[in-house]
Amino acid sequence: MAKNVIVGQSGGPTAVINSSLAGVYKTARSLGADTVYGMKYGIEGLLKEEMVDLDELLDDRMSIELLKRTPSSYLGSCRYKLPDPDTDSAPFVKLFNLFDKYDICAVFYIGGNDSMDTIAKLSRYAARVGSSVRFIGVPKTIDNDLCLTDHTPGYGSAAKYIATILKEVIRDSSVYNLRSVTVAEIMGRHAGWLAGAACLAAGEDCEGPDLILLPEVPFDEEKFLARVDELQQRKPNVIIAASEGVKTAGGVYLCDLVSTAGQLDAFGHKAVLSGTSRYLSELIHKRLNCKSRAIEFSTLQRCASHLASRTDVTEAYAAGGAAAAAAFAGETGRMIALKRIGNTPYQCITESVDVQQVANLEKKVPLDWIAPDGMHVTAAFEEYARPLILDELTPIYVNGTPRHVHL
Amino acid sequence: MAKNVIVGQSGGPTAVINSSLAGVYKTARSLGADTVYGMKYGIEGLLKEEMVDLDELLDDRMSIELLKRTPSSYLGSCRYKLPDPDTDSAPFVKLFNLFDKYDICAVFYIGGNDSMDTIAKLSRYAARVGSSVRFIGVPKTIDNDLCLTDHTPGYGSAAKYIATILKEVIRDSSVYNLRSVTVAEIMGRHAGWLAGAACLAAGEDCEGPDLILLPEVPFDEEKFLARVDELQQRKPNVIIAASEGVKTAGGVYLCDLVSTAGQLDAFGHKAVLSGTSRYLSELIHKRLNCKSRAIEFSTLQRCASHLASRTDVTEAYAAGGAAAAAAFAGETGRMIALKRIGNTPYQCITESVDVQQVANLEKKVPLDWIAPDGMHVTAAFEEYARPLILDELTPIYVNGTPRHVHL
Repeated sequence: MAKNVIVGQSGGPTAVINSSLAGVYKTARSLGADTVYGMKYGIEGLLKEEMVDLDELLDDRMSIELLKRTPSSYLGSCRYKLPDPDTDSAPFVKLFNLFDKYDICAVFYIGGNDSMDTIAKLSRYAARVGSSVRFIGVPKTIDNDLCLTDHTPGYGSAAKYIATILKEVIRDSSVYNLRSVTVAEIMGRHAGWLAGAACLAAGEDCEGPDLILLPEVPFDEEKFLARVDELQQRKPNVIIAASEGVKTAGGVYLCDLVSTAGQLDAFGHKAVLSGTSRYLSELIHKRLNCKSRAIEFSTLQRCASHLASRTDVTEAYAAGGAAAAAAFAGETGRMIALKRIGNTPYQCITESVDVQQVANLEKKVPLDWIAPDGMHVTAAFEEYARPLILDELTPIYVNGTPRHVHL
Repeated sequence: MAKNVIVGQSGGPTAVINSSLAGVYKTARSLGADTVYGMKYGIEGLLKEEMVDLDELLDDRMSIELLKRTPSSYLGSCRYKLPDPDTDSAPFVKLFNLFDKYDICAVFYIGGNDSMDTIAKLSRYAARVGSSVRFIGVPKTIDNDLCLTDHTPGYGSAAKYIATILKEVIRDSSVYNLRSVTVAEIMGRHAGWLAGAACLAAGEDCEGPDLILLPEVPFDEEKFLARVDELQQRKPNVIIAASEGVKTAGGVYLCDLVSTAGQLDAFGHKAVLSGTSRYLSELIHKRLNCKSRAIEFSTLQRCASHLASRTDVTEAYAAGGAAAAAAFAGETGRMIALKRIGNTPYQCITESVDVQQVANLEKKVPLDWIAPDGMHVTAAFEEYARPLILDELTPIYVNGTPRHVHL
């Protein structure tokens, strides 16, 4: 009987996607897997038979510790989506031949809703052709937009990064005795989970952001400007956290409002002004005539392992481990989900859910977790998100920077 | 005899400017100062008699520890420059009256070369009017451009931040099996000390940046593109660290090359494309037809206390303390400098230098620390900068984010 397994990483990286890889690897080995293979660049690489033997790479405990502290996807990733097997079965035939060739009994895929589509299709195809290979998805995304799971591994660390650097930017914004507005742009095109995490900057030593704009709420320019104006008249430094996905009532992204204005840059390209924060900062400057600056929190939101949440690291590892355990218990076509047991104290366990009910769907911020005026989040949001950023995983600094592993 | 002192912070903040404040405060108290006053918003605030009594704010050891971990300028800052006392003595008369009123025997000013101009002018004026008040400058700037000091407090932490996040971005850049160029934009309008620190991302686990562009070297577009082309043909992910201060041979900033192209944004303003990194990224995309992205390291370079260098924190504190000691030993018109004793092991002490020889001057990266092709730094640069980013000061995390203090 086949005793080998294979694991892949897919979609955008997070600070803790490698912790899930470590969890799959260690647990599969503990449960008796002979060889744990890794797909290079996800299913796209596997189709080209690009694989590595993880036993050769992660055979000591130190490598596992470094892997947990390494951002981005250790194995590489892809955004490839498998076709519908009814219209094109070629990639499926090829993949199942490879599973035979390498004595694969279980396939693990760490990713978001597109990646869960891959697990769903593979498990359906396996049922149709009578294959015993099991397919389990491991959730991963900073966007926290997967259904049927309380939250996704990767979100907590992104939220901790956002809260921490926003707090530092808030301190920075008050350095001069000047009135100013700061607009921080936060990732999340469709859901406001990351923008909402800006509320976590608040505490006894910090007021946190004054306004939070989420994609769930249509942007009302006049209402927004009136609110900013009111704020800047009573406090010197106004802080706005804005999701990159903020749209007008007509469904146009604010960033597109600028870049579709038609101007060309020095190269004759359409200017990539983009930037929701730049748009808002300019709007405030022009309409309220006050000093305003934009700051983009950038790709660091998905790769700042030096500031990972230990809660997130632990849960990411557990999700990977639970996936291996589920496969060895005979499950297939499932995704591991996180189930919150309670908040006082915060406790969370894994369970498995039907991957078909996760694939391709998006979970947004509940409207009753958004403030009535649509420009902040409620205490319920903070109560939900706060436990996910708690505690730290100390980087292992060598020569002044955190040590990573790479293929 | 007057036994009180006053301290102010000036210019842009750093991650460790508050450690220097802590050093002044603790040492002045140890040496017998009755009251340690703080200027609110630097000398500009002092002219309005805006002061705080630091004894009331920092009276316990925990406050000092939190102060060392708080980014930005605790007391607030300004960019105000005193006039020449020969043409306008009014502010000097006002300030010296305040020194009398509050029994001030020594004034400490933590800042860059503009702030040292303030100390120089005040000490010259004191000599002229026969005042016994002593004036000592404490160096501070992420730009590392002060003369007569081996390096400046603030630089090491900015360098550690740049090296760490560049390393994370480098890992992030290799996630997909695609060829790409990443251009990271680093602060430093006139000197390349911060851009050069990108070399510190390199180690056994990371190649570091492929190219580093400094303001000290005129930008040669064709040579640059030929080099990028050669690189991207032999490695999938090319990493470029570019100073925001990169200029053409004609002295034009690259960022101005874009924004002076004349296009207007949606508001009829000149488009703030700016961004040296955006310019370079567009240039690469257009001329070499390859995927390219720009990332700005932003204001976090001066306020990321969560990633401060412990070496920097310790030296910043020592510089503040040495300033207090110098004043109590009778010195005036001096700036505390850092003097490197050696690299193996790294040892550094403080000394005092003539502030007149520091004020308004800029120290650039020596040309023999820049690679012959002008697009990287040498081993000598790394040997200089590496010790400055070593070791960490663990933030005190409360509820998931670092705890700060504020006025």
